[in-house]
Amino acid sequence: MTSTTRTDPVAAARELAPVLARRAAEYDERAAFPQADFDDLRAAGLLGLMVPTRLGGSGAHFVDYTTVASTLARGSGATALIFNMHASVTGALAHTPDDVVRAMGAPPSYFAARDRILADAAEGAFYAVAMSERGAGSRLSRVTTRYERTAEGFHITGSKAFVSGAGHADAYLVAARAAEPDADGRPVVSYFLVPAGAGVTVEPTWNSLGMRATGSHDLHLDVHVPADALLGGVEGLTLLVAQVMPHWLVASYAAVYVGVAQSAIDAAAAHLTDRGLTDLPAARARIGRADAEVAAARLAVTEAARRVDADPGAEETRRAAWRAKLLAGDTAARVATGMLEAAGTSATRRGHALERIFRDARCGALQPPTSDVCADWLGVAALGGDPERDTAIPRW
Amino acid sequence: MTSTTRTDPVAAARELAPVLARRAAEYDERAAFPQADFDDLRAAGLLGLMVPTRLGGSGAHFVDYTTVASTLARGSGATALIFNMHASVTGALAHTPDDVVRAMGAPPSYFAARDRILADAAEGAFYAVAMSERGAGSRLSRVTTRYERTAEGFHITGSKAFVSGAGHADAYLVAARAAEPDADGRPVVSYFLVPAGAGVTVEPTWNSLGMRATGSHDLHLDVHVPADALLGGVEGLTLLVAQVMPHWLVASYAAVYVGVAQSAIDAAAAHLTDRGLTDLPAARARIGRADAEVAAARLAVTEAARRVDADPGAEETRRAAWRAKLLAGDTAARVATGMLEAAGTSATRRGHALERIFRDARCGALQPPTSDVCADWLGVAALGGDPERDTAIPRW
Amino acid sequence: MTSTTRTDPVAAARELAPVLARRAAEYDERAAFPQADFDDLRAAGLLGLMVPTRLGGSGAHFVDYTTVASTLARGSGATALIFNMHASVTGALAHTPDDVVRAMGAPPSYFAARDRILADAAEGAFYAVAMSERGAGSRLSRVTTRYERTAEGFHITGSKAFVSGAGHADAYLVAARAAEPDADGRPVVSYFLVPAGAGVTVEPTWNSLGMRATGSHDLHLDVHVPADALLGGVEGLTLLVAQVMPHWLVASYAAVYVGVAQSAIDAAAAHLTDRGLTDLPAARARIGRADAEVAAARLAVTEAARRVDADPGAEETRRAAWRAKLLAGDTAARVATGMLEAAGTSATRRGHALERIFRDARCGALQPPTSDVCADWLGVAALGGDPERDTAIPRW
Amino acid sequence: MTSTTRTDPVAAARELAPVLARRAAEYDERAAFPQADFDDLRAAGLLGLMVPTRLGGSGAHFVDYTTVASTLARGSGATALIFNMHASVTGALAHTPDDVVRAMGAPPSYFAARDRILADAAEGAFYAVAMSERGAGSRLSRVTTRYERTAEGFHITGSKAFVSGAGHADAYLVAARAAEPDADGRPVVSYFLVPAGAGVTVEPTWNSLGMRATGSHDLHLDVHVPADALLGGVEGLTLLVAQVMPHWLVASYAAVYVGVAQSAIDAAAAHLTDRGLTDLPAARARIGRADAEVAAARLAVTEAARRVDADPGAEETRRAAWRAKLLAGDTAARVATGMLEAAGTSATRRGHALERIFRDARCGALQPPTSDVCADWLGVAALGGDPERDTAIPRW
Repeated sequence: MTSTTRTDPVAAARELAPVLARRAAEYDERAAFPQADFDDLRAAGLLGLMVPTRLGGSGAHFVDYTTVASTLARGSGATALIFNMHASVTGALAHTPDDVVRAMGAPPSYFAARDRILADAAEGAFYAVAMSERGAGSRLSRVTTRYERTAEGFHITGSKAFVSGAGHADAYLVAARAAEPDADGRPVVSYFLVPAGAGVTVEPTWNSLGMRATGSHDLHLDVHVPADALLGGVEGLTLLVAQVMPHWLVASYAAVYVGVAQSAIDAAAAHLTDRGLTDLPAARARIGRADAEVAAARLAVTEAARRVDADPGAEETRRAAWRAKLLAGDTAARVATGMLEAAGTSATRRGHALERIFRDARCGALQPPTSDVCADWLGVAALGGDPERDTAIPRW
Repeated sequence: MTSTTRTDPVAAARELAPVLARRAAEYDERAAFPQADFDDLRAAGLLGLMVPTRLGGSGAHFVDYTTVASTLARGSGATALIFNMHASVTGALAHTPDDVVRAMGAPPSYFAARDRILADAAEGAFYAVAMSERGAGSRLSRVTTRYERTAEGFHITGSKAFVSGAGHADAYLVAARAAEPDADGRPVVSYFLVPAGAGVTVEPTWNSLGMRATGSHDLHLDVHVPADALLGGVEGLTLLVAQVMPHWLVASYAAVYVGVAQSAIDAAAAHLTDRGLTDLPAARARIGRADAEVAAARLAVTEAARRVDADPGAEETRRAAWRAKLLAGDTAARVATGMLEAAGTSATRRGHALERIFRDARCGALQPPTSDVCADWLGVAALGGDPERDTAIPRW
Repeated sequence: MTSTTRTDPVAAARELAPVLARRAAEYDERAAFPQADFDDLRAAGLLGLMVPTRLGGSGAHFVDYTTVASTLARGSGATALIFNMHASVTGALAHTPDDVVRAMGAPPSYFAARDRILADAAEGAFYAVAMSERGAGSRLSRVTTRYERTAEGFHITGSKAFVSGAGHADAYLVAARAAEPDADGRPVVSYFLVPAGAGVTVEPTWNSLGMRATGSHDLHLDVHVPADALLGGVEGLTLLVAQVMPHWLVASYAAVYVGVAQSAIDAAAAHLTDRGLTDLPAARARIGRADAEVAAARLAVTEAARRVDADPGAEETRRAAWRAKLLAGDTAARVATGMLEAAGTSATRRGHALERIFRDARCGALQPPTSDVCADWLGVAALGGDPERDTAIPRW
Repeated sequence: MTSTTRTDPVAAARELAPVLARRAAEYDERAAFPQADFDDLRAAGLLGLMVPTRLGGSGAHFVDYTTVASTLARGSGATALIFNMHASVTGALAHTPDDVVRAMGAPPSYFAARDRILADAAEGAFYAVAMSERGAGSRLSRVTTRYERTAEGFHITGSKAFVSGAGHADAYLVAARAAEPDADGRPVVSYFLVPAGAGVTVEPTWNSLGMRATGSHDLHLDVHVPADALLGGVEGLTLLVAQVMPHWLVASYAAVYVGVAQSAIDAAAAHLTDRGLTDLPAARARIGRADAEVAAARLAVTEAARRVDADPGAEETRRAAWRAKLLAGDTAARVATGMLEAAGTSATRRGHALERIFRDARCGALQPPTSDVCADWLGVAALGGDPERDTAIPRW
């Protein structure tokens, strides 16, 4: 049985946010995985957020996730961003309807395997995502990590990049390409849940302007996994997750950056209040506009989440997700800039919350899909076109 | 009995929007009251939008109003802005709870009078607002229009400014000050519903950059009204409406400007599609960003409206209304500018929809409370202050 | 001999600016050619600004022109924009070196003809430019206006668009295509100076958001001109002017919009001073930033002009001209917007200087080359590319 | 005689810039004083830039300084910023006219002392500025550092903040307050040139978002200096330098940030070229606009410098300096942001030039006078007011 407590996850996140905030400077300074934060998330049961209640989780919807993620991000953007990857894995697994999975050819064994993964998360297992590769970005069709069948299961070899929480996860969701193409000569890309341990090594490459504590290092794989590590028990199922999870990721990043943007306002307000400078008209105006902008970005994220919950495959859901990503990323960067100007030069000292938040906030719009890409897709759609077809920029 | 039909008001507005759009250029050019638009609104029952169903209206909530108003504004901003004033009068009357009115000293006769006003609206009566005065702005404490008791009722004298729909309304909501102050020497300001006719004259002063068809002219009053023209049947009731209606107006303007912003995107998309220019990357990026910004402003308006419906007096409702006003006004201006740049110089010709929309869209942020004022209030509130107390700028 | 007086043209422009400003509202309202302004320009000798002193002109350099044009535009943008076309014709003729003209095959008769045109300008002749055509834009290679040799000279037929000052000029600079291509099958495009009169008719199509008084109507040509109307006395000389004049036009537009931007600050400052509102922090901040931005745009125009004077054909001169155009157009639009927000809703009334300036200022960035096109060219150049080759957008 | 070579300082700076650029990442990473850069500046004779030629220097004008400083900053912003302080000390001393100094009561001994300081700089002496104090900012009237006359000279005690190059300078320009006020009870504030050594200790407090290598640490003073350390040989001369140097500093900071902004474009262009991404329209547009903005900011700095050279005390010179500071600071921040978006997420890695430049560029607008303060002053001046009198914000 689980040692975690099933409380209201939003309330739990609210309680944890100030705790995370107190630790954020140090984890950022050391570019270290926020272990204590994850101990607290685990203890609060938040690793089971997306797990159905029948498996010991909170059974949250996506819209709940966005509230939890942006609340955590108000404390620490980096912690929320790592949490986001775990929630994406568990959320995508939990929310893909059984009949869809069945229709895609998953064997009956799929469901037991999935339930075990989810139940483990409810018990505190922490999953990371190892999908991107240098050169391939996050496009599945270009995956170079390979796998071969062995007597006991599979042998996976290759390298992944931008693996948030690398070295600290219990298992990694890995996309790999079969040694042989399918009958039609097309690449077979499958998902594996690869346990941490021998054959999985971390190369500490992450050294970024912001979101430093995500430790999104490279992961090198030369690992033998048992047969049931193949997600769903059937090869070539990536498409399934690829269709659901990207939207998940697009809108889920957005939730994090709304929280980061809000934390910039919090920090500026605290700074000005401490110094008795709440009367400066220019600072007040900046804070007032930031307040409105962050509120709007939050509403856009909630709207996207509502649509993901209600109709994940709809075109309008995709547009809502792009809008949320664009607005949250741009708002976070702009608001953090404005708050630094409101607070003044003393807030640029390392260790000051705003100094870190300014760097963290800059990263959102640059994470794929970038704001420029979202704008292009939205523009094509608004002009009656089809972003799949009418942009030079491939969507996934 | 009413000749109007009780259909779904949102559906009715959607049907009317393109009709309004076709007429908008001409009304703008002539700076003329959009009589045909109001004939259609009346026929569609939309003048009864806010009237309770028991009185023959649609019984709409504020959140419904915002959808109707922004839908109409997508056709014609000026028509929607005039409609907004009528909806504010009827909405404020319909939604102020009976017990609140009673607690403020309204006599039993108030309710019958109110019901008659509302029932008339459901029948097609059209009300305008005559509150602002030159010099006093919209601040009730500075009202100079006077009234005196007469044998048959009241004699009202004075001048009002910015009366949208002046000369075309069936009656005007007029704020006036009693000749004598109350026992404590404080001014007594009362509301009257003054019927159009003798003693009510229009001075055609409205000649504005945008929103030209609102005909927001000056109104001169030297008029005798019967006793029951006193709203609520009791003097000094202005405070009541003053507390509810301003929020109404703040958020209701915002709904209009969201529709105007959307109409700019519509017009730019049509323009580029007509000319086969949908492939220009710069135009596409502008439209994509505009799409996201307008969606966010719309969500902010809906959020404010939801709060006005649920808890009209709450501080958080006020903040939501200011955010909506700020975002809608700024978004409309910025989006219309960007759409003009996307469409190019041929869209600056008078008669082109974008040329008019660009001018109309510029007006929102300047209407009180201006974006700068909203930002200041929001900044004070975010810094833990009280906008009533901590800004030099009086709120109402 | 000339009736005009040779005084310092900058001083003359400074004296005239407030006079132009007083008339600007009426010409804008009537969308009428500013006849009184041009009478004053003529009387002040400013039509001879670019004419060499040996021919009775002021012998101004381009850098002088930009000062005169932006000074006049501070009074009236539309008048300055018409003046700009006249100055472009006379300036391009005056400043193209004799040896360059000779090298391009101009016969000796070219010089006498040119001198006569310039001397006439010094005497008060006013020239307009009829180059653009609907569909072809301002691209010479797409000119459809035709000419044929006749016994006495040429017969020119076709239509031109955006002819500022149409119906009021003494002659029009017209680009037309020969009925027959040259030996290599390439179109022969020549310039004519077509006198106003029979066969030159104006279709009043100009009805624009801003710059209404330029009267940039369509011009229909079915006209016989004597042989010496052929500019330079030789066919196919367009390339010559095409190489010099566009830079002229690019940077000369910019000078006008710097003046328009400055006039927005002037008008806002006057408005706030009149109303005793110079203490509003938000208004002050807007004016302060506008002041800096306009100063920067002015410096960019002067820098471009300096380079045009020193080395008109250099690549760096082209870049300076694009920068000037981009900065002046965008600055004018942004500053006029900010000044309207600083001044408030009372400045949106038609007849208020800011209302007109806001509309005028919007036009600069949209005039070709638009800000987006300038940005693309500058981006290509900064990336080491060649805008002639590396953009889909043809330069001229 | 000097070991340095008198070459063209601008050419020397151009040669050094790429050398500085290669070292910048490491100095930033270690937040270490760029010793090798200063060795090179010294060897190139640039420490004598502002020193008159008769004393072995380059005899540069302010306008030359801005070119040198922005050129150096194109290599390393931090190095240029430290250099800026040294140039300010030597420039203010070199450029204050003798008769002005005499009129302020400087004894004849002043000139020999000044010449020695300047000659030492030409020989390679490096001076830092120790003016700001925590709490007092850079306002001389609030200086708390004290001095007392002793038998041999003066005893200075107190603490200074933001001393760029602290621990590496040969001497520090220190403002201190006499133990006793003058006859009228007003504080007597004097300048000293305090040699590094015993009694001058550095507290390593500098740990900033950007400009990390300036090492702008705290300086604690408990030091006995000889009588001739008193600048000018007379107490109370601060006013002199206070009137000249602030303008120097305002405009000289600006020169540095123009170079930083240009370096952001350089880095983005190199990044995109390396990756073969020069065809992306969004990136190209961003670079094109950045190119224009940086050019405009550079022109504003040159204009301010030209005026400082021509008429340092004029009100228009002050305005030009504020404009330059505002434009350079805001442009650097905006351009660096845009270039990061053009280059994408791979440019956010620590060690990438853009990552550092983004942080460095953020600091300019926040350094006093901040952009908001400059905007307020400019707004007051444009409205016909006097910034000395009409803002709550004291100027120096």
